[in-house]
Amino acid sequence: MSAPSAVELIERKKRGGELTPEELRGFLAGYVSGEIRDYQVASWLMAVCWRGMTERETLALTEAMVESGATLEWPGLDRPTVDKHSTGGVGDKTSVVLVPLMAAAGAAFVKMSGRGLGHTGGTLDKLEAIPGFRCELPLDKMRAQVLRIGAALVGQSGDLVPADKKLYALRDVTGTVDSIPLIAGSIMSKKLAGGARSIVLDVKWGSGAFMQTLDEARVLARTLVRIGEGAGRSTRAVLSSMRQPLGRAVGNALEIREAIDTLRGGGPADLWALTLELGAQLLEMSGLAPDEATARARLTELRDSGAGSRVLEQLIEAQHGDPRVVENPDILPAAPVVRPFTADAEGWIEAADARGIGDAALALGAGRRTKDDPVDPAVGIVVRARIGDRVQAGQPLADIHARTDADADAAIERLRTAFALSTAEVAAADDSYETIG
Amino acid sequence: MSAPSAVELIERKKRGGELTPEELRGFLAGYVSGEIRDYQVASWLMAVCWRGMTERETLALTEAMVESGATLEWPGLDRPTVDKHSTGGVGDKTSVVLVPLMAAAGAAFVKMSGRGLGHTGGTLDKLEAIPGFRCELPLDKMRAQVLRIGAALVGQSGDLVPADKKLYALRDVTGTVDSIPLIAGSIMSKKLAGGARSIVLDVKWGSGAFMQTLDEARVLARTLVRIGEGAGRSTRAVLSSMRQPLGRAVGNALEIREAIDTLRGGGPADLWALTLELGAQLLEMSGLAPDEATARARLTELRDSGAGSRVLEQLIEAQHGDPRVVENPDILPAAPVVRPFTADAEGWIEAADARGIGDAALALGAGRRTKDDPVDPAVGIVVRARIGDRVQAGQPLADIHARTDADADAAIERLRTAFALSTAEVAAADDSYETIG
Repeated sequence: MSAPSAVELIERKKRGGELTPEELRGFLAGYVSGEIRDYQVASWLMAVCWRGMTERETLALTEAMVESGATLEWPGLDRPTVDKHSTGGVGDKTSVVLVPLMAAAGAAFVKMSGRGLGHTGGTLDKLEAIPGFRCELPLDKMRAQVLRIGAALVGQSGDLVPADKKLYALRDVTGTVDSIPLIAGSIMSKKLAGGARSIVLDVKWGSGAFMQTLDEARVLARTLVRIGEGAGRSTRAVLSSMRQPLGRAVGNALEIREAIDTLRGGGPADLWALTLELGAQLLEMSGLAPDEATARARLTELRDSGAGSRVLEQLIEAQHGDPRVVENPDILPAAPVVRPFTADAEGWIEAADARGIGDAALALGAGRRTKDDPVDPAVGIVVRARIGDRVQAGQPLADIHARTDADADAAIERLRTAFALSTAEVAAADDSYETIG
Repeated sequence: MSAPSAVELIERKKRGGELTPEELRGFLAGYVSGEIRDYQVASWLMAVCWRGMTERETLALTEAMVESGATLEWPGLDRPTVDKHSTGGVGDKTSVVLVPLMAAAGAAFVKMSGRGLGHTGGTLDKLEAIPGFRCELPLDKMRAQVLRIGAALVGQSGDLVPADKKLYALRDVTGTVDSIPLIAGSIMSKKLAGGARSIVLDVKWGSGAFMQTLDEARVLARTLVRIGEGAGRSTRAVLSSMRQPLGRAVGNALEIREAIDTLRGGGPADLWALTLELGAQLLEMSGLAPDEATARARLTELRDSGAGSRVLEQLIEAQHGDPRVVENPDILPAAPVVRPFTADAEGWIEAADARGIGDAALALGAGRRTKDDPVDPAVGIVVRARIGDRVQAGQPLADIHARTDADADAAIERLRTAFALSTAEVAAADDSYETIG
């Protein structure tokens, strides 16, 4: 019997049937080679949004995407390889803290990141706020850097998972982005191609995240973990809330400053707590710590001893940035206008909406509306109040770092709708984590 | 507010929402102009298969398709315009009987037909079995012919409904053919563009039809009628069974012979009954008869007087065919090999499966597997037994008209699976009709 045609495969998915791993591999290979046309893949994508994919299909699609390009291998490396992915949020600078600490703890951590789009920031944009820093490294240089210091913070290599690029571009223009198996396949194909043996996934939920509810986030987290485990990697997911921004700073240089501060023992509690949670999972999975409690103690010690900061200095230097930034964050670009946004009454903070604050930072120039927009590294918002805080009238809720007074005025208007005050007491947001896997 | 983007429209349909008539018109116009890409339309088509379309959407899509091209107008015509569409079946030669009779009754009937594909035949292929007959006429010639004799049997004009051609070609390669609103829009756009004021739809169900069950056929029929009425045309649908072929002949010249026979008062009862039913609906809707009973009597009288046959002769002559075929069907091409397929036991006919018989005729060369295949006008099958008939062992159930003995042998093997005998008595198939509208 000959292989089913593309139309037969589309129709089977449309009726709710399952494609075999071989069929999915052939379909994706046909798409990459141009034999199966984008309109056929588009209708299949919508059928997947409709019918979903089985666990076997999701794994097969992910592995087929990995097979579409190169994969990273680490011969000669005597450290366990680890990786992390965040589904994206507002103020998420965790990688800048976690990567140096994990390298100091003995892991090899090549973090490939993206650029920001819309209200969520991108780690590459944040790093490029450091004078001279380069995210694009030749493969041999990156390899040498990882062998030497155990860490790299780089852009997604164009050689890895070309099928994901092609598929994502098509999903973006055909209304087929929000399908859990497609999202999971896109995320995990890049993690699998990166070669790490232990993977932790930071799955965020809430207004500032892609997943609006905890339940949706759980479904995505389970799908991600099953793909990772199905592909033979140790994989866990940590669910964290994105109702309010992570930490206080939102904006590129401001976030780097906060990440450095956190790596040096200061910084906001929630950012450190999430760093510890993700790091503890990775240390335990990779065998570098016997249990989570030991892992947490180890990471705290590496922070307090300055070992993590020293790795960050080495990493910045190796990637052409100015390493003095770690001791002296004042060399980061700064905005000319800094203005407070104040409470207009007393009360309890009921909302400090991540999406609204992210949109205000975006409007200041900290992010991009379309992928070719330039980013202003200096501007952004530093949030000074969290959900559940008791505040007085006139108390600053946020500092606005703007290019112009007019921009600051506009940001203040936007923040008015992002913050909400209650006259009744409001409980602090629950910052505990749920771990899957 | 600016108009929603193509992606926004796709996503709204994906979530089960409704597009406005203006939005659908813009979407289709964008597709025809190339501004909206085929992959976007493909994912929207699959979303329509998933979510369906509202009555308002279906009508708007159909009218937008009509607006994509020319429409036929009939200035100077003093006859009421009528039209008919069959959803396709095996042995369906009704148009060849109905069109001349309706013209004889005073209507103007321009029947635009298609070619056969797969197990269903096409009226154009049947007509071209008549020596010299041409289905492609210049518009001015066709107009003159209709003014003179009230009838034409032609191919679909390329100027009408170009959007349907483009959309159908895309549906065919993206697994999005079987959606009731899309099927209904495709059918009705061509009927509306043809300009007739009264439209009857022959919606078939059963193994040989596109709709497998009566319930599916009812849904399609109601959708078709609502579009027609919504667009201001008198519209009715007649549901007829396609469990066994219509009439006895399956194959082009064989079907023309049967149609002529029926127009002259002979022919199989089911073919005449369906012709009467469809014609009565059209005569009543167009005001040419006060009620169905009068309409039926009128059509029978026009058959018996030879008025219908005379119109068919005029039509064939006007379209370059040999009109003597009406008096002498022996001038039609004949197959060199004629062999019986006989019952291997006594019993009652339980199945004379339309699909299986259609496939056997296709394999003999009467139809096309792909749209560029040639068609052999002479070959086919004449069925001699209907569901419920009592037959003896050795009694012929069908005659096979083949090009070669080997083809006849192969057809016999195929017919073995199409026919089923029962040792218990089987009731005749119910040939009554259900009318909607």
